Amino acid sequence: MAIVERHDTGAVARLVLNTPEKLNALSDAMLADLHDSFDRIAADDSIRAVILAGNGKAFCAGHDLKEMQAGRAAPDGGAEYFADLFARCGALMARIQSLPQPVIAEVSGIATAAGCQLVATCDMAIAAKGTRFGVNGVNIGLFCSTPMVALTRNVPRKQAFEMLSTGAFILTDRAIEIGLINRAVPAEELEEATMELAQTVASKLKAAVKIGKEAFYTQAAMPTAEAYAYAGAVMVENMLDTDTNEGIQAFLEKRSPDWRQ
Amino acid sequence: MAIVERHDTGAVARLVLNTPEKLNALSDAMLADLHDSFDRIAADDSIRAVILAGNGKAFCAGHDLKEMQAGRAAPDGGAEYFADLFARCGALMARIQSLPQPVIAEVSGIATAAGCQLVATCDMAIAAKGTRFGVNGVNIGLFCSTPMVALTRNVPRKQAFEMLSTGAFILTDRAIEIGLINRAVPAEELEEATMELAQTVASKLKAAVKIGKEAFYTQAAMPTAEAYAYAGAVMVENMLDTDTNEGIQAFLEKRSPDWRQ
Amino acid sequence: MAIVERHDTGAVARLVLNTPEKLNALSDAMLADLHDSFDRIAADDSIRAVILAGNGKAFCAGHDLKEMQAGRAAPDGGAEYFADLFARCGALMARIQSLPQPVIAEVSGIATAAGCQLVATCDMAIAAKGTRFGVNGVNIGLFCSTPMVALTRNVPRKQAFEMLSTGAFILTDRAIEIGLINRAVPAEELEEATMELAQTVASKLKAAVKIGKEAFYTQAAMPTAEAYAYAGAVMVENMLDTDTNEGIQAFLEKRSPDWRQ
Repeated sequence: MAIVERHDTGAVARLVLNTPEKLNALSDAMLADLHDSFDRIAADDSIRAVILAGNGKAFCAGHDLKEMQAGRAAPDGGAEYFADLFARCGALMARIQSLPQPVIAEVSGIATAAGCQLVATCDMAIAAKGTRFGVNGVNIGLFCSTPMVALTRNVPRKQAFEMLSTGAFILTDRAIEIGLINRAVPAEELEEATMELAQTVASKLKAAVKIGKEAFYTQAAMPTAEAYAYAGAVMVENMLDTDTNEGIQAFLEKRSPDWRQ
Repeated sequence: MAIVERHDTGAVARLVLNTPEKLNALSDAMLADLHDSFDRIAADDSIRAVILAGNGKAFCAGHDLKEMQAGRAAPDGGAEYFADLFARCGALMARIQSLPQPVIAEVSGIATAAGCQLVATCDMAIAAKGTRFGVNGVNIGLFCSTPMVALTRNVPRKQAFEMLSTGAFILTDRAIEIGLINRAVPAEELEEATMELAQTVASKLKAAVKIGKEAFYTQAAMPTAEAYAYAGAVMVENMLDTDTNEGIQAFLEKRSPDWRQ
Repeated sequence: MAIVERHDTGAVARLVLNTPEKLNALSDAMLADLHDSFDRIAADDSIRAVILAGNGKAFCAGHDLKEMQAGRAAPDGGAEYFADLFARCGALMARIQSLPQPVIAEVSGIATAAGCQLVATCDMAIAAKGTRFGVNGVNIGLFCSTPMVALTRNVPRKQAFEMLSTGAFILTDRAIEIGLINRAVPAEELEEATMELAQTVASKLKAAVKIGKEAFYTQAAMPTAEAYAYAGAVMVENMLDTDTNEGIQAFLEKRSPDWRQ
């Protein structure tokens, strides 16, 4: 059994975190396997959208605490190992946002600490009603500082601070309100709902989605005027794509586009 | 018939996009006329608030696709024309935010692509219930990269990504929830509602609103400490205005201010 | 009677603005006393959470307008005094966010102008149902430019602009929706609700909360990649705390942590 399973349905790759006995914790092996899985998808021309789900009762419960505690045995008390661990975890988050294909989190059960960070990092997220979200490291004396980077780029300030400093869980209704997830559906409809969203995205012109996703995160970090200059150049590049020409022409002629891609 | 009509009511200028047969598309002529209209308003001391509305079934359906396709006939396939087009469109958006007077979008029907960007760019927006909003260029192979700059400065990340990558429309209730518009009213009350909001703004001290709008966008781009230093200087300038002195004094004496402006 | 009263309950310090006859205005004396109170709390190892409340009908009605008008008597018309006043007010806001302990605003009645800025600046806020919030300086000709700095870092752009340019009040339901406060409770339960939240925060590992609060505001100002590098280093420091080791170990052994702090 692979730590991360991959099932392709047409142009949609579904990755499943598959260590349910560990609540799909982000162990060293899980981090490496996930990063590899995304690297393979990045290079796979047949894939246009990705779903990230978890097997079992939890989507993901964060870092593997047993493994982290074992790291303390090193002469430096684990300092080097921990620094490397958080660097690898941050690199995974960056990998998700730099992936050419959109990534949809399919969340059920619980998503805590770095598991909640994964949800915040994915481009979109749909959850089963009743799913609980928390950045609750503070309960065991470890403030969720790295999950906070992703959380605060999704959620208003006071709501993020409350989650981080109290360790309290929020449910799906609140997660929608504050912008952590796109929507919630009954648990039995979750897989279908994420697949439908993934297939919608996969039905668009691949080059346009790719150029758009990259621009999404790039322009967000820029002052407005610079963002417009950059996004304008992106639009020109997009316009000069033969398939975009066909897409616009087909729209004007009220017919379906005949895309090469 | 002008492409952009202007009707003044007291200190409120109402601009109406007036090519309903083209769903008020942002053609070259429309962009130029709108930019000119705003330039004239910027220089018009009698105007204190602006409404931007659309004539017909749509507020604005984005760029003029026929005109864009015609641009491909140039030797460079349109590259220079497209670059210039997006620069002119970005300059219009900057013109709206640099205008001394607040601009209120009065939105009904649909606002798509660069039309949705216009809504996101205006300082405030009121919509008729049932209005549909979308950044749906992805449906024809042209990701809405420039509208995204305005959208992502109004709306949480995941909600923006979903709109951009699926091309799906949202309705007014959702547009309010995610912060794209201020509120919605029944269609038959829309013009009255925007006029009331415009007149409220127009009743304030003009110099204070002007200094405040400029500071709004300027400080938003700064780190917090720098923003406070800048905003503090703005407050001092505002305090030293004779009319502000009168406004505060009148408040303390429980009477109406006698403003020169 | 002190201008700012302090009552400690265990590890929670409750500061109460105590000039109800002035609606707890941020006079020179109030600013100085508040700043001193926070300085003392910063240096007080026994305090782990802070509540900021107001005595009487208002939480805080902003600057002391009579005192500001008196400042105009100086040869420079008050320019130096005003610059110093806004610098001191900004320093107070920075002091709240640089405090090692989380600060919870306990808001009832009204919170206007710099009073609303205080609410926006506190790490969290709970209000009595029916509390009114406004940045209404524009009504007297003084745009709330400094309150805007705090407001726009909590609230979506269009909602902030409307409050600033119209001077209109919003009530608690709307304040929750736009992210200005965490939640609202009936007035008679307000003090208990803030104390419960403060005690929850105070029950966490002090060093973790301190390191986390500092990281919260520091990383928010950074580009994402830089924020991850910084937050990773914060996590390593947090992991190397003996009490965090004990917290994680206790969790793994399903027992309560035995923290020195």
